[in-house]
Amino acid sequence: MRVSQLFLPTLREVPAEAEVVSHQLLLRAGFIRKAAAGVYTFLPLAWRVIKKIEQIIREEMDRQGGQEIMMPIIQPAELWQESGRWDVYGPELFRLKDRHGRDFCLGPTHEEIVTALVRQEVNSYRQLPQLLYQIQNKYRDERRPRFGLLRGREFIMKDLYSFDRDEAGLEISYQKMYEAYTRVFTRCGLKFRPVEADSGAIGGNDTHEFMVLADSGEALVVFCPDESCGYAANVERAISPVQGGVAREETPQPLKTMDTPGMHTVEQVTGYLGVDARRLIKTILYQTEKGVVAALVRGDREVNEVKLQKVLDVLRLELANAATVKRITGAAVGYAGPVGLQDVWLVADEEVMLLVNAVTGANRDDAHLANVNPGRDFTPQVVADIRKVRAGDPCPKCGAPLKETRGIEVGQIFKLGDKYSRVLGATYLDEHGQSRTMIMGCYGIGVTRTMAAAVEQNHDENGIIWPVSIAPFHVVVVPVNHRDEQQMGLAEEVYRELEANGIEVVLDDRPERVGVKFKDADLVGYPMRITVGNQAVQTGELEVRYRASGETRLVPRERITGHVREFIAQA
Amino acid sequence: MRVSQLFLPTLREVPAEAEVVSHQLLLRAGFIRKAAAGVYTFLPLAWRVIKKIEQIIREEMDRQGGQEIMMPIIQPAELWQESGRWDVYGPELFRLKDRHGRDFCLGPTHEEIVTALVRQEVNSYRQLPQLLYQIQNKYRDERRPRFGLLRGREFIMKDLYSFDRDEAGLEISYQKMYEAYTRVFTRCGLKFRPVEADSGAIGGNDTHEFMVLADSGEALVVFCPDESCGYAANVERAISPVQGGVAREETPQPLKTMDTPGMHTVEQVTGYLGVDARRLIKTILYQTEKGVVAALVRGDREVNEVKLQKVLDVLRLELANAATVKRITGAAVGYAGPVGLQDVWLVADEEVMLLVNAVTGANRDDAHLANVNPGRDFTPQVVADIRKVRAGDPCPKCGAPLKETRGIEVGQIFKLGDKYSRVLGATYLDEHGQSRTMIMGCYGIGVTRTMAAAVEQNHDENGIIWPVSIAPFHVVVVPVNHRDEQQMGLAEEVYRELEANGIEVVLDDRPERVGVKFKDADLVGYPMRITVGNQAVQTGELEVRYRASGETRLVPRERITGHVREFIAQA
Repeated sequence: MRVSQLFLPTLREVPAEAEVVSHQLLLRAGFIRKAAAGVYTFLPLAWRVIKKIEQIIREEMDRQGGQEIMMPIIQPAELWQESGRWDVYGPELFRLKDRHGRDFCLGPTHEEIVTALVRQEVNSYRQLPQLLYQIQNKYRDERRPRFGLLRGREFIMKDLYSFDRDEAGLEISYQKMYEAYTRVFTRCGLKFRPVEADSGAIGGNDTHEFMVLADSGEALVVFCPDESCGYAANVERAISPVQGGVAREETPQPLKTMDTPGMHTVEQVTGYLGVDARRLIKTILYQTEKGVVAALVRGDREVNEVKLQKVLDVLRLELANAATVKRITGAAVGYAGPVGLQDVWLVADEEVMLLVNAVTGANRDDAHLANVNPGRDFTPQVVADIRKVRAGDPCPKCGAPLKETRGIEVGQIFKLGDKYSRVLGATYLDEHGQSRTMIMGCYGIGVTRTMAAAVEQNHDENGIIWPVSIAPFHVVVVPVNHRDEQQMGLAEEVYRELEANGIEVVLDDRPERVGVKFKDADLVGYPMRITVGNQAVQTGELEVRYRASGETRLVPRERITGHVREFIAQA
Repeated sequence: MRVSQLFLPTLREVPAEAEVVSHQLLLRAGFIRKAAAGVYTFLPLAWRVIKKIEQIIREEMDRQGGQEIMMPIIQPAELWQESGRWDVYGPELFRLKDRHGRDFCLGPTHEEIVTALVRQEVNSYRQLPQLLYQIQNKYRDERRPRFGLLRGREFIMKDLYSFDRDEAGLEISYQKMYEAYTRVFTRCGLKFRPVEADSGAIGGNDTHEFMVLADSGEALVVFCPDESCGYAANVERAISPVQGGVAREETPQPLKTMDTPGMHTVEQVTGYLGVDARRLIKTILYQTEKGVVAALVRGDREVNEVKLQKVLDVLRLELANAATVKRITGAAVGYAGPVGLQDVWLVADEEVMLLVNAVTGANRDDAHLANVNPGRDFTPQVVADIRKVRAGDPCPKCGAPLKETRGIEVGQIFKLGDKYSRVLGATYLDEHGQSRTMIMGCYGIGVTRTMAAAVEQNHDENGIIWPVSIAPFHVVVVPVNHRDEQQMGLAEEVYRELEANGIEVVLDDRPERVGVKFKDADLVGYPMRITVGNQAVQTGELEVRYRASGETRLVPRERITGHVREFIAQA
């Protein structure tokens, strides 16, 4: 392909609307254009990357016995009513009516459709397991679409659904997908980490997220540095043994009130009173559909709201507003404490219960209590693990201090169990003629998200650095002076030779200054650039530059195809 | 792939809802399942066929310089309002609102989106032409979805849009697409014919439809049997020179009224009066938004309503009901004639004006007029070509008698001109710095429709006969007796050898009777079946059967891979 003919509209400026680097670079490098909020057109280079990612996924799904199908994007409401999700899915579901007034939605996921298909077509244990997948546009009407492809409203996903005879079968399917996902992201050339995750609203039990590691990732992950241990979890889900606080050997002292004028943060109170944050009990009030909750964690800890929500079994969990805090505690925000608190559900983290002579808010403006002792001065309704794990906490498997990293979730695998098959009646006859419910799993990869995550992980100040396996093209050939016939002739010759040898190459034949071409080459992120200048014409040596390392090397003209081939093969 | 593991649910019975053979066979052979009216899930074998068709299309689009992109399925209403189509598109457009109440539609076509993209990114004549395409789900809310994939509400299309500097450039792009389409359908192994077509509601000038020939086709095509001439047209659009009727040498006689009691069809009147149908003037009343129209054609002719609608420049054209006929003519249906007719728009076909001493209805029950002479007895407001061409009429290019055939429209290419680029302001600067409007074309192929059309064209009473290039698999290996270890062993060996050699093969390893396997093999339509029975075990010769010809042949075991390869290469 010649760059003069490529639909590749690069931009000099960083588009104002783009907050994250993948969004900025994919716009600037001419890969995507916005069609509406959270809705994008993929231009030729993006589409090449996406097709490569899709093909890698396809091969790995097929390797595990997956069979590719294509289910509809518009789904009839009836099935969603049958599963019970029509009413609970909320405003993220795009809904529409056909000309006869029948309700449809645009699929955000396909559990209903695929379960209805399988219940109709599979009825014997002999036909199980089934691993069915598709690669398709998905729809989610985000309240605030942003970050380009990382949070769009229309995006491409691979979704696979497994149907097994029993939990043991599911475990096999789940492991197959774990392996497939590991291979997919490895082949995509990405640094990633599978982590234990929270199963969230979709339901089910076991689940792992596959995180592409990037500083800009919205997800925080903790992991054990000991690779033979391998523990890694989304911080939402991460656990760690209870840590003893300070002063566990002290004798409980009588409760006393301390003036703490204007001191309402942990830092202010500990500084003012000269105590360790680990001696404080932080009291956070939440509004839920079951009433107000006071969550207690140690002063140096944060509440893990995902854990708290699960412990409480509530759908809604929001920080209480100042008026509610005032009504419940009688004080401004910053002076809440568990002692004497009425009309709330008191939930304490396990670590809080180990404290002796702790400090808490006094439920009175500008005052705290000292020598608070759990059990003596207050009794929680629930004691549970509701704290957020952080770097330095011991690994729950081996005890080594955990580390933290940030990541972008690009895949997730779920054990659904019988959640959908039971409600939708997907049963089969076992060896003994008994009807049994199929056991399901679901497994997603965000295809367009993976492309964006690849950019978040692989870029520098000049542009994108594509991993070779998913690069839109492998090589750009750049003649230095487009008016020099010899340079243009040699460049053309090299370009044609590479193309004839099946290498994905573009020739930058535009009548532009070489600086512009170099800038565009770096911005677009071709893994290899071959420069054809006077030196090449005279000496027959071509300057090859590697985008990732920035190194250059001279390669004899006659060895260029072999050199490029080796580079691609080794990548 | 082993058939025991394939998700391939064949059916014994013809599903009641399926009217046409492609719908019946694709359901029975386990290729598709209905998810909602006009909405289907494509099972693994269908998806393999579709991917092959897509890949052929992709290669041929790329060969002509097309660049593949992917535009959104959900399109913002703003662009459709800008083009003016939001209000006129009607109930076939699926419309929806997002959570903020903004209007969107599901794209039935992408002129607006692609024109908005190009107007933003292309501004110089140097960047033209552009040929941009995508292969994607499209949506059309048919009032009555039917015929399976032939008239669905969700379907896969390839749509390409060309942007040129001028009409001469469009002509080149159009010819490229004409050639690409010819190659696509040839490579798909289909008998087809490009025909001149009517440009219909989408607007524009020149257009061709690509028809897959099949007796069940909904479109009637006339074509010149002289291949060096090559004229072919959809009957809606076909033209043919005016044919002289009978009695052109007669002297006009005085008008007279004839009793024709109960005679109200052409056959009845001509039989009763003993005259040639070519002497009759058939008078058909239509209701339009501009009033009632009386269309006159010769008794042996049919009105071409597409031509009539164009001549009248009306949006609505429906046969007038009996009450209207009575009001206008004073008679029941069957006795209308042009003589003395008031308050209607009289439109005569050219051939009618050549008649001498013709017969027409008398606008009175049970009576006709004889010796009617156009010009003397009535004067039409419009004389035009409004007749339907039929087999036997002379070719408009060479005069040879035309032939008829039926076809299924699977592709259409259109010259749009500046219809969209003008309204949406897609302009560029020419060599002289002058702003000019781009000239567009659009080019569609129904991918899922092509699969269905392939089945309509290629089947017998036992099932589908896939053209080799788009067959889901090339070969099925069938062991005769699944309990015979030697047969199973040899079958397995042949299967593995073929698969290792890159041949798309399935092994029917199901514990079924051989008759069931043969039936399924014919139903699914594998181009080649290899049977492994006792004879094969004893003699080392495999029975090969070709689905298309029904022939069988014995092939030595050691030559089987070569034989299959040759078969595929020659197809």
